[in-house]
Amino acid sequence: MELSRRILNMGFSPIRKLAPYGDAAKNKGIKVYHLNIGQPDIETPKEFTDGLNNYDDKVLKYAQSQGIPDLIRSFISYYKQWNIDFQEDELLVTNGGSEAVSFALTAICDINDEIIVPEPFYTNYAGFAEGVGVKIVPFITKAEEGFHLPSRDIIERKITNKTRAIMLSNPGNPTGVIYTKAEIRMIADICKSHNLFLISDEVYREFVYDGLEYTSALYMEDVKDNVVLIDSISKRYSACGARIGLIASKNKALINQTLKLCQARLCVATIEQLGAANLINTPKEYFDKVKNEYEERRNLVYNKLSKIDGVVCEKPNGAFYIIAKLPIKSSDDFAKWMLTDFTHNNATVMVAPASGFYATDGLGEDEIRISYCLNTEDLSNAMDILSLALNKYLEKEI
Amino acid sequence: MELSRRILNMGFSPIRKLAPYGDAAKNKGIKVYHLNIGQPDIETPKEFTDGLNNYDDKVLKYAQSQGIPDLIRSFISYYKQWNIDFQEDELLVTNGGSEAVSFALTAICDINDEIIVPEPFYTNYAGFAEGVGVKIVPFITKAEEGFHLPSRDIIERKITNKTRAIMLSNPGNPTGVIYTKAEIRMIADICKSHNLFLISDEVYREFVYDGLEYTSALYMEDVKDNVVLIDSISKRYSACGARIGLIASKNKALINQTLKLCQARLCVATIEQLGAANLINTPKEYFDKVKNEYEERRNLVYNKLSKIDGVVCEKPNGAFYIIAKLPIKSSDDFAKWMLTDFTHNNATVMVAPASGFYATDGLGEDEIRISYCLNTEDLSNAMDILSLALNKYLEKEI
Repeated sequence: MELSRRILNMGFSPIRKLAPYGDAAKNKGIKVYHLNIGQPDIETPKEFTDGLNNYDDKVLKYAQSQGIPDLIRSFISYYKQWNIDFQEDELLVTNGGSEAVSFALTAICDINDEIIVPEPFYTNYAGFAEGVGVKIVPFITKAEEGFHLPSRDIIERKITNKTRAIMLSNPGNPTGVIYTKAEIRMIADICKSHNLFLISDEVYREFVYDGLEYTSALYMEDVKDNVVLIDSISKRYSACGARIGLIASKNKALINQTLKLCQARLCVATIEQLGAANLINTPKEYFDKVKNEYEERRNLVYNKLSKIDGVVCEKPNGAFYIIAKLPIKSSDDFAKWMLTDFTHNNATVMVAPASGFYATDGLGEDEIRISYCLNTEDLSNAMDILSLALNKYLEKEI
Repeated sequence: MELSRRILNMGFSPIRKLAPYGDAAKNKGIKVYHLNIGQPDIETPKEFTDGLNNYDDKVLKYAQSQGIPDLIRSFISYYKQWNIDFQEDELLVTNGGSEAVSFALTAICDINDEIIVPEPFYTNYAGFAEGVGVKIVPFITKAEEGFHLPSRDIIERKITNKTRAIMLSNPGNPTGVIYTKAEIRMIADICKSHNLFLISDEVYREFVYDGLEYTSALYMEDVKDNVVLIDSISKRYSACGARIGLIASKNKALINQTLKLCQARLCVATIEQLGAANLINTPKEYFDKVKNEYEERRNLVYNKLSKIDGVVCEKPNGAFYIIAKLPIKSSDDFAKWMLTDFTHNNATVMVAPASGFYATDGLGEDEIRISYCLNTEDLSNAMDILSLALNKYLEKEI
């Protein structure tokens, strides 16, 4: 029997595909610094564990398909802090932001419909789109422009009669870009003129540095029926393993219809929802500390990168990623080589080759994504190793 | 903006769509017996909670996309007890059996491909298929034949050049049928001759009564590359809220490709996997007790149903469902009416109207699915109320 073309066409995750080489290195006793994955090392607030203990039923039952009421109320309170008003029938709890994206695409797009996405983009968007038969139509944003948006006409040129939405992440993964209010306004205007949904992935909302102002797509009052919010507790509360996300919209018809998808998969893990619901009680100082920590790491990584000959990157203002252009031909080869053929003091680093973050063939092949989720000491070591590795790799190539 | 046709075409879950009427009744102080949902009332083994406590990291991290090694090993040990040998690269942990079905369909079928399914079938198959653009082609099985399979030629007549798989649940939800070895052999033969996958949903494996022998599709050695197993701990261990399922196959290519879908959604909830991994230590007596309990409930429900005039049903041999044909026109209307307009001693019952378990329009409209997940005392009350309600409803109609 043959497998489906869509599964064969799908790529393995660029963030995870090098894992077997990393495991092999570790089995040889080599220390591997993980710069490939956005797995924060920050402690999960103890409020999560306290919440887990609220489960007192002797039967581990299905939860409500839309999410448990406590968690929905907790999300509503959270958004109020960001001046976003949601009602209970405007939110659905999902299996991480991942399921929220899949559900949004399914509810908005029929087979072969198109969504417009700035590239580079969060690599799994491509997997979700392929899985549900939706086409990603990319427009390019560039390292040397800090991955800010191009002009309106360049984006509008991508619109066809199949286009159903524009999707973006803000703060940006993998770019670290923070879109300005003017940029979000422009996207909102395009969506309004062309009757498109605006799928706004805002899971890094807390991670905005340099005193910049954060603009949610939901602040654009006149397009509130167009906006579909994707969110997750994973990064904000360093709780990736909880798999608690959310799809939300002031467009009640969209939420009501998407509930069908929630019902089909019955519910999200019950106990994890209780943990998540209690995270609303996390003290505000937690975020301040986390943000300062990441800002310091961002500075460290950016400063180290800037000192490497031939590297091109702008200082990102948000999330915890940076895309760097290296003076090499294939970051796939380089990333693999660091795991199989290079060590320094019995250590090496794993990075994510960036081609997997682009839909356009050939783009990103000389770029890597670095995730700065290590403490500053480890991060400093990792960046030094990366620099040494790059030198060695370039010598080898000559 | 319009929503997608596929989401509009999808139905709300027949198991869950009456929930608002149930909630309204409860708000009026009415006791509602839930015969609509397969939510066991049996205690989850304490081994699950013990397993949760094994998490000792201060950061709630992503787990491996394929599932944590402990859980995979635990599943391998479990299958050994059923004389099924799996290797570590033949299993993927999923968000319940639900995600396993979606992944199987995506990996096997391209858009507009077809899968053949005996109807009535587990209603959410339709939702998953619609979501990923796959067409369900049903063949009929009948209450008066205990929902056993028709002859080979009737099934083969449904095969087209778009057919990619036959999918069935055994023990059957919503029918309670246990397919005989000859039936599974016949399905295996059809799949072998026509080069089709056999997606076998065996989540009710433990629930086989009357001393019948259980035949897994995996016992058919000559088609082991065709068989894709769907499984879940939800029913077996009364742990529905854990959302831990599994897709498994001796077809390593299928599992390897499906890993891409696992990577795209990152992982299944980490802590719940630890709980699930420890369930392997549940003593065997647990299952014996559970099975005896359900067999007793099955007898009670069947005996009560048999005494109601005009009801047609055969005694089911497995799972914890029974489909009954009632002397009414619309079980949708009847089920809703019981919640909005009927009480007996301030109590009523919620059942699942069966039309949602059929793909063919018009079928199942006079049928209901009863799930016998209540203790015998509640179940007995619920069945008496159902009987009284039916009489009253029929009087009203005259």
